[in-house]
Amino acid sequence: MTTVDLRSDTVTKPTAGMLEAMFNAKVGDDVFGEDETINLLEQKAADIFGMEAGIYCPSGTMTNQIAIKCFTQPLDELIADQTAHVYRYEGGGIAFNSGVSTRLLNGYRGILTAEMIEPEINADNIHYPHTSLVVLENTVNKGGGSCYTLDQIKPIAELCKAKGLKLHLDGARIFNALAYTGDKAADYGKYFNGISVCLSKGLGAPVGSVLLADRDTIKYARRIRKVLGGGMRQAGFLAAAGIYALDHHVERLKIDHAHAQILADALSKSSAVTNVLPAETNIVLFDTVEPAEAVLQKLASQGIQAMSTDKHRIRFVLHLDVHPEQIEHVVSIIGSLV
Amino acid sequence: MTTVDLRSDTVTKPTAGMLEAMFNAKVGDDVFGEDETINLLEQKAADIFGMEAGIYCPSGTMTNQIAIKCFTQPLDELIADQTAHVYRYEGGGIAFNSGVSTRLLNGYRGILTAEMIEPEINADNIHYPHTSLVVLENTVNKGGGSCYTLDQIKPIAELCKAKGLKLHLDGARIFNALAYTGDKAADYGKYFNGISVCLSKGLGAPVGSVLLADRDTIKYARRIRKVLGGGMRQAGFLAAAGIYALDHHVERLKIDHAHAQILADALSKSSAVTNVLPAETNIVLFDTVEPAEAVLQKLASQGIQAMSTDKHRIRFVLHLDVHPEQIEHVVSIIGSLV
Amino acid sequence: MTTVDLRSDTVTKPTAGMLEAMFNAKVGDDVFGEDETINLLEQKAADIFGMEAGIYCPSGTMTNQIAIKCFTQPLDELIADQTAHVYRYEGGGIAFNSGVSTRLLNGYRGILTAEMIEPEINADNIHYPHTSLVVLENTVNKGGGSCYTLDQIKPIAELCKAKGLKLHLDGARIFNALAYTGDKAADYGKYFNGISVCLSKGLGAPVGSVLLADRDTIKYARRIRKVLGGGMRQAGFLAAAGIYALDHHVERLKIDHAHAQILADALSKSSAVTNVLPAETNIVLFDTVEPAEAVLQKLASQGIQAMSTDKHRIRFVLHLDVHPEQIEHVVSIIGSLV
Amino acid sequence: MTTVDLRSDTVTKPTAGMLEAMFNAKVGDDVFGEDETINLLEQKAADIFGMEAGIYCPSGTMTNQIAIKCFTQPLDELIADQTAHVYRYEGGGIAFNSGVSTRLLNGYRGILTAEMIEPEINADNIHYPHTSLVVLENTVNKGGGSCYTLDQIKPIAELCKAKGLKLHLDGARIFNALAYTGDKAADYGKYFNGISVCLSKGLGAPVGSVLLADRDTIKYARRIRKVLGGGMRQAGFLAAAGIYALDHHVERLKIDHAHAQILADALSKSSAVTNVLPAETNIVLFDTVEPAEAVLQKLASQGIQAMSTDKHRIRFVLHLDVHPEQIEHVVSIIGSLV
Repeated sequence: MTTVDLRSDTVTKPTAGMLEAMFNAKVGDDVFGEDETINLLEQKAADIFGMEAGIYCPSGTMTNQIAIKCFTQPLDELIADQTAHVYRYEGGGIAFNSGVSTRLLNGYRGILTAEMIEPEINADNIHYPHTSLVVLENTVNKGGGSCYTLDQIKPIAELCKAKGLKLHLDGARIFNALAYTGDKAADYGKYFNGISVCLSKGLGAPVGSVLLADRDTIKYARRIRKVLGGGMRQAGFLAAAGIYALDHHVERLKIDHAHAQILADALSKSSAVTNVLPAETNIVLFDTVEPAEAVLQKLASQGIQAMSTDKHRIRFVLHLDVHPEQIEHVVSIIGSLV
Repeated sequence: MTTVDLRSDTVTKPTAGMLEAMFNAKVGDDVFGEDETINLLEQKAADIFGMEAGIYCPSGTMTNQIAIKCFTQPLDELIADQTAHVYRYEGGGIAFNSGVSTRLLNGYRGILTAEMIEPEINADNIHYPHTSLVVLENTVNKGGGSCYTLDQIKPIAELCKAKGLKLHLDGARIFNALAYTGDKAADYGKYFNGISVCLSKGLGAPVGSVLLADRDTIKYARRIRKVLGGGMRQAGFLAAAGIYALDHHVERLKIDHAHAQILADALSKSSAVTNVLPAETNIVLFDTVEPAEAVLQKLASQGIQAMSTDKHRIRFVLHLDVHPEQIEHVVSIIGSLV
Repeated sequence: MTTVDLRSDTVTKPTAGMLEAMFNAKVGDDVFGEDETINLLEQKAADIFGMEAGIYCPSGTMTNQIAIKCFTQPLDELIADQTAHVYRYEGGGIAFNSGVSTRLLNGYRGILTAEMIEPEINADNIHYPHTSLVVLENTVNKGGGSCYTLDQIKPIAELCKAKGLKLHLDGARIFNALAYTGDKAADYGKYFNGISVCLSKGLGAPVGSVLLADRDTIKYARRIRKVLGGGMRQAGFLAAAGIYALDHHVERLKIDHAHAQILADALSKSSAVTNVLPAETNIVLFDTVEPAEAVLQKLASQGIQAMSTDKHRIRFVLHLDVHPEQIEHVVSIIGSLV
Repeated sequence: MTTVDLRSDTVTKPTAGMLEAMFNAKVGDDVFGEDETINLLEQKAADIFGMEAGIYCPSGTMTNQIAIKCFTQPLDELIADQTAHVYRYEGGGIAFNSGVSTRLLNGYRGILTAEMIEPEINADNIHYPHTSLVVLENTVNKGGGSCYTLDQIKPIAELCKAKGLKLHLDGARIFNALAYTGDKAADYGKYFNGISVCLSKGLGAPVGSVLLADRDTIKYARRIRKVLGGGMRQAGFLAAAGIYALDHHVERLKIDHAHAQILADALSKSSAVTNVLPAETNIVLFDTVEPAEAVLQKLASQGIQAMSTDKHRIRFVLHLDVHPEQIEHVVSIIGSLV
């Protein structure tokens, strides 16, 4: 029995084609700006999203943390949803790396609106930190892959502009959002000051994330990446995987979404499951009658790995290493849960 | 017409007796530990609360911020109510001074319970900041002077001890809480690792706050006070006012509470007021039919100063510079509000 | 035998006139901007030095640390002499409060020149922190009260302007420098972005320091003072002492300088002393044949308190609580040292 | 004409054997601890140096910065040579990442002694930051590849132990030092609390550095790596290159050293060169009659790339992509310099 790993879309391993691209990459010392594959990846990603420039980093946490540092100063405050990855899963980096406070809102499945944000912008008063940044996440991991459309983002961007705030997108799974909403990537550059795009989640590259912004911001971001220790030498081997992923693994995200839908449907019919969140993209969140840990053990005994996100909530994440026959297997196991 | 200043209990000016105590103070260079009045105040305050040692600081913000730094390290997280002064009104100092994240809970009028806190203590996982501190506020300013009893605090202290967390009390108005609950100050030392006690609020001293803790913590606190620039030279003039306040202005807090009750009763009868929070101590929060700004203007035209805390909410704070005849005046004006 | 305290000019106690001024001060809640004595002091100090605005703080460490935060960002570097108070005696605040690196130069008695500074300004390279600030100290404490003239400062100010650096003056003893050099205080504003002026050293006020700068910087400084916990309530009692000191204790600094010269002359003739630094202002540094601790004990046995700054170096500091007859006593004791 | 790149030993590209090792690597999600190649590299490096555990990071800057954070707290100070990479070339990270001050010493070619360090350990006084860490670099980059022997390190380690300081080794080129001194790598673990070992310098791997320490420190280091954004997913491709380098590229460092010696000898004979520092390892520093930039241009016109480290100083760095016939070419060009 092979294992079906639904823990995360970060667990994927390079395909043969990706490995070949990596193997043939032209590399150089990126600290000298001489790794042409990295340079190519950075510009390619910027072009896709209508931004000026990009910087390749070892992780999405780093691109997010650099963006937050670029767009804030100590004594500032950022606004995000209470489920935001930048707040919950980046080790407390907002305070640690940037000395910045966090104002958390309670969006629906992590989705914020301009109306929620506006009253939380602090007045100019020395008692309050200075609100300078809004961070959105699309898709929202903890929301179960819920999505913003650009129509939803537009009024937030307008509010930020009117109030002098920067707007950053944690786009760890932005291509999943695009696949669902049908929005154009190139339109994103109009609305955001910074965009993080992960290559190692649904896109299937082994390592890395790109931060996109205007040229001055990216120049400053290189300084921050250096001080955080994120400057790598001949990392073009990894960047080549990113380029390959952008060329070959974007269209196929729809397969993961279809798989998610199949699993969500199966879960909806199970008496062991009390609730299934709408599976808009590649994540399925569902609540279980039994404690999540017990259900996870049953799944594991059938070769299915997943994670709980709460005492009675389990998360399935679909990705390119989950194949149709494995979906069938999971569906049949779901059917047997009581 | 004299002004009745209900904006804050920080606006008080020294009484004749306090002034006399100030100008007879024996002072010295406290950086050399030679200001005997400061030394006396620090020990007196520690003794009152059953703590080992104290350190005198220019403000309650400084005593809180020093405590947070003493009880945390960067990468840590503290837990507090979402109304907490340390989070809302100290300029973002938790992140700025300590590099620490904040987990906010939604207590009733700012009052937390062990049951609310326990699930919010992060697991030992590198994605999450390390939860190391709980901060309580007693009375809760934004809760309208709401109080914890020691019976309510005890289970929180036990949880903290069991989980290895420190527990700090922002006791800016702790004497108001003691006056209401009847708890003994000396019992507080059993439950808290640190206590901030403000001298310049209800107690009526012009400047200062004392942080209380064990000797090692206070030794370290002196290092932090130095780096923040809070070390003063011959500040015994101010400390003398603090000693006088502890000797003469604690018992009389009940007068402020009685005044608050009188105003709350009057407000309850006003058709201009939709809601009055229970006035347990020296703060009265009430909601107005008209926008708060309009009501504040009417009050100001009658010589009554106050502040809004929300679009339809006004705060009255009682203190030793508000006298019975002024209370009568305010009651009569409240009666005339429509 | 009365004690002659030559440890520091911070040990002075208010004169009768100063105490009276303090006792009669009009005070208010400075957090609301309502303490008119503080407001007066801030503007008075700004006017003296030809600056736009000022902010009163509990200590010179705080005014310096706020200035450094105002004039830098994290990832920046400041340049100062290796003896600088901001580096040596402020608890590591440059790194702690501002996240800023320090490049130390080796000036003559702490006095820097533009030629020393220019090559130490980092090139625009992500490996290096961004040089953004030069800090001068006048007089230089560790230099034995050595002074810059404005003619020496001018080329440094021009270099800073040309290179886009800010220039801050740690003027803890600036009035001593002015008394020695004959420069005009009002001319200082042309050269510096920020000036710290201590009221509690030679000027004899019990507590406090004023930071001077342009209005925007001082507005931002109020935010930083708040987060550090330096905002005080009715501190006008202390500010009144500062105003009195500016009115009455500036001219008399020449007396301290004359006293210092008398002691330096006496020390020069002592066989127990190997070297006396020129006593330009109110500090005398001298080197002893015996270990400094042994000499300090002999002095203490004669009622003279002083401090060592190295194993064979002692510092005398003159101030308004050292009277002529005490100088005679010290001279006679110096004469008896072997 | 092929280019001879003597700018840095970071410019090397993987050999065929290394590339093969990389693309046969077994990888997994290292955030889940499942990349067996990374796990293997970490333990292998730890074993080599007699340490308990290791953590793989994207750069030597990150391993150094993590070590500094592990071994200090804000308000602390570290001691290092004034040429130290951690101070000069890591973007100001000591202050930025750790809030720590730096005390710089003036070693001979960057080599410190216990006698230099001891007087610079701050006394326990709130004015001074708390000295908690000494950082040595071996070899010293800015010293021209100068080396400590373990006999030189031992008294420093003993001093640190006696004074309660931690001792960290920036071992970016530690294998070059071992090749020169003949010391055993496994003995290093006795003396240091932390060791950074770069894989992407003389060892020729494309990316990465390993931090070695005891298990508790490495556990905490994983938390810091996460918050800095250094956690990577399937980075085993890079780790495989590191393992290959440890297996195949250590012994050959002697070739680089011999090459350096040949170039140093040739430079010593050139009338265009005023001074050549002893070439102990793979770095040659030399001073030129003409400005360095002019000499670099002449070299470049002959296909030789190098860098200046001062106005009249040039650095050559040898590495595995510089072959004997290229050395002959460089020697002949040196011979033609006037």
